[in-house]
Amino acid sequence: MGTVPLLSDEEVSAEALAVFEEIRKVRQTDFINNFWRALAHDPELLRATWDRLKMVMAPGALDPLVKELIYVAVSTANGCEYCVHSHTAAAKAKGMTPEMHGELLAVIGMAAQTNALVTGLQTPVDESFRT
Amino acid sequence: MGTVPLLSDEEVSAEALAVFEEIRKVRQTDFINNFWRALAHDPELLRATWDRLKMVMAPGALDPLVKELIYVAVSTANGCEYCVHSHTAAAKAKGMTPEMHGELLAVIGMAAQTNALVTGLQTPVDESFRT
Amino acid sequence: MGTVPLLSDEEVSAEALAVFEEIRKVRQTDFINNFWRALAHDPELLRATWDRLKMVMAPGALDPLVKELIYVAVSTANGCEYCVHSHTAAAKAKGMTPEMHGELLAVIGMAAQTNALVTGLQTPVDESFRT
Amino acid sequence: MGTVPLLSDEEVSAEALAVFEEIRKVRQTDFINNFWRALAHDPELLRATWDRLKMVMAPGALDPLVKELIYVAVSTANGCEYCVHSHTAAAKAKGMTPEMHGELLAVIGMAAQTNALVTGLQTPVDESFRT
Amino acid sequence: MGTVPLLSDEEVSAEALAVFEEIRKVRQTDFINNFWRALAHDPELLRATWDRLKMVMAPGALDPLVKELIYVAVSTANGCEYCVHSHTAAAKAKGMTPEMHGELLAVIGMAAQTNALVTGLQTPVDESFRT
Amino acid sequence: MGTVPLLSDEEVSAEALAVFEEIRKVRQTDFINNFWRALAHDPELLRATWDRLKMVMAPGALDPLVKELIYVAVSTANGCEYCVHSHTAAAKAKGMTPEMHGELLAVIGMAAQTNALVTGLQTPVDESFRT
Repeated sequence: MGTVPLLSDEEVSAEALAVFEEIRKVRQTDFINNFWRALAHDPELLRATWDRLKMVMAPGALDPLVKELIYVAVSTANGCEYCVHSHTAAAKAKGMTPEMHGELLAVIGMAAQTNALVTGLQTPVDESFRT
Repeated sequence: MGTVPLLSDEEVSAEALAVFEEIRKVRQTDFINNFWRALAHDPELLRATWDRLKMVMAPGALDPLVKELIYVAVSTANGCEYCVHSHTAAAKAKGMTPEMHGELLAVIGMAAQTNALVTGLQTPVDESFRT
Repeated sequence: MGTVPLLSDEEVSAEALAVFEEIRKVRQTDFINNFWRALAHDPELLRATWDRLKMVMAPGALDPLVKELIYVAVSTANGCEYCVHSHTAAAKAKGMTPEMHGELLAVIGMAAQTNALVTGLQTPVDESFRT
Repeated sequence: MGTVPLLSDEEVSAEALAVFEEIRKVRQTDFINNFWRALAHDPELLRATWDRLKMVMAPGALDPLVKELIYVAVSTANGCEYCVHSHTAAAKAKGMTPEMHGELLAVIGMAAQTNALVTGLQTPVDESFRT
Repeated sequence: MGTVPLLSDEEVSAEALAVFEEIRKVRQTDFINNFWRALAHDPELLRATWDRLKMVMAPGALDPLVKELIYVAVSTANGCEYCVHSHTAAAKAKGMTPEMHGELLAVIGMAAQTNALVTGLQTPVDESFRT
Repeated sequence: MGTVPLLSDEEVSAEALAVFEEIRKVRQTDFINNFWRALAHDPELLRATWDRLKMVMAPGALDPLVKELIYVAVSTANGCEYCVHSHTAAAKAKGMTPEMHGELLAVIGMAAQTNALVTGLQTPVDESFRT
């Protein structure tokens, strides 16, 4: 249905299967979502993407839920249907309440609106905003 | 420099000046940034934008810093130079540390990358992600 | 300053100069804006772009001012600084008043906002909207 | 099917139902499209969005059909499937003929093309275009 | 299903049918894909689009497969589902191997990531990059 | 001038300086462009971005010039000024001729145009394009 077929555990290479096993271990679930099954056509790209994602989304100065909200925001601005669905689901799993979801959407919508207004106005950046 | 000139306090209408005064009061500063000075050409649009922004960015289920991070993320994905500058400055003012800024950028970059990969793969949405 | 230098009348090929002359005749001005001076590096692309633009923007079922408003709207949504400036100037030259400019921006901003909300909600298209 | 379920009249809050009733009255139809049924999860966001949309799209210096054409243009540039469908349907309902639709698409396509060319060329903005 | 119905050979105008016949001849297949069947509602737009596409995608300084890879890259960045599918299919038909597909996606993803990082950082362009 | 200052060799951490030295060695030049000097504020992000970029842009099934053309195409579609400049310069350094540049721009512009037309038409994907 995509530009490459989704690969089952039986169809992937040993390198790809090793990534699947890591995903299962880290996420504590047997479920491997379609993104990884599509990426598995290129085990090197699968490995690099997973390794980096795991690191970027780990707890740090920002907590994992805040990172998921940011991920949903970027995915929405980029119009990525799959990513909006998968990261909204992840945010809910990490504790996003309906109230937080509503506020997230309100901020995303507000930002999209003022982004468009500023671009239409071509407002010059205030000197005080520059480092 | 933009598609409309920036208006000084002396040049704006009474309705626009009233909005400027509210911005000064809420933000506890005399400074009115260029976005509002450009929008002041249309007092109704200025009023509606400010009223809504004030409400959306107020503390709620999400705290104001998290809301600013989301605003920066959307503005970056939309490629809005002015908005990236103004909301990054606002996030710093609300407590964003260099470590948080670095992680924010890392999540934005990661999301942009996987958004692009999923779109190139046209991966179908997993049934389990749909409500 | 761009990725190719701007070409003066003396530097362009005969084919490109012929397009410049047509632009001057149709627009009844000597002024050739930078877009054409950059495109002139590829006379075939210059010719094809001008020929098509002239046709698309001619009076038809939609009048030229409405077409310019649509052009500004698309350019704003695409974040094209040059295009926002040049087509806003063209719209003003064709009769866009400050009131119309304000309403144009309000619609662009509103559309950007609801586009983002719908994308974040992933709302399914109503059957009645499909032809 | 979206990131939140669509709510029926029976499932929404009193505040949300009041907005539904206004939509029905203004549009003179019983039909409430899915966007509003999804937004109803957050009655405050629903109210704010509807109130602003009603105002922005009302007759003014630009007529309602021109506003719908601009809405379709922005929605297309932003790649919002739902919005392209809903606002194309609204434009048809307000009098957009097949000829106007064809010209709208031609302008949108032309703008997207020259936006991309200018961005690839990084053409500097002509001084004469700046206010 | 789209905003206009798809037209069969029997339903299109003589001008549109002539374009269909050219597409069949150039591509050496009877198959006319949906894009052309939708565009056929506006025979002038159909003709202009086909004439230009044929020219732009012809062998030149860049070979046709490289042009298809670029087309897929732009379509992916623009989030156009139909275009990603149709041009990925075209690239495969012109010789894109699974290894090339994987590298194409990796470059698209990398570019999307660094585009976002640069935009978030608002890095000024190095003087040496300007012509 | 950006959202973080550019760091000189003297100001960066030892980890960041090590990345700078690798960039100098791989590219056989002393020049470190601003992107890396901005990223150096977050040595981990600098390291991860450089390591991945080096790998993705290395010769493989696609040659390095083709990869640069794809990078320019994505950067143009995403409207990233810095990236268009830096990767156009890189493409020229790797052998992109003015003819190739003109064709690259023509394909980018054509793709942007048909992406917009398809989105406006909401054309359903042909079954034969799906894997």
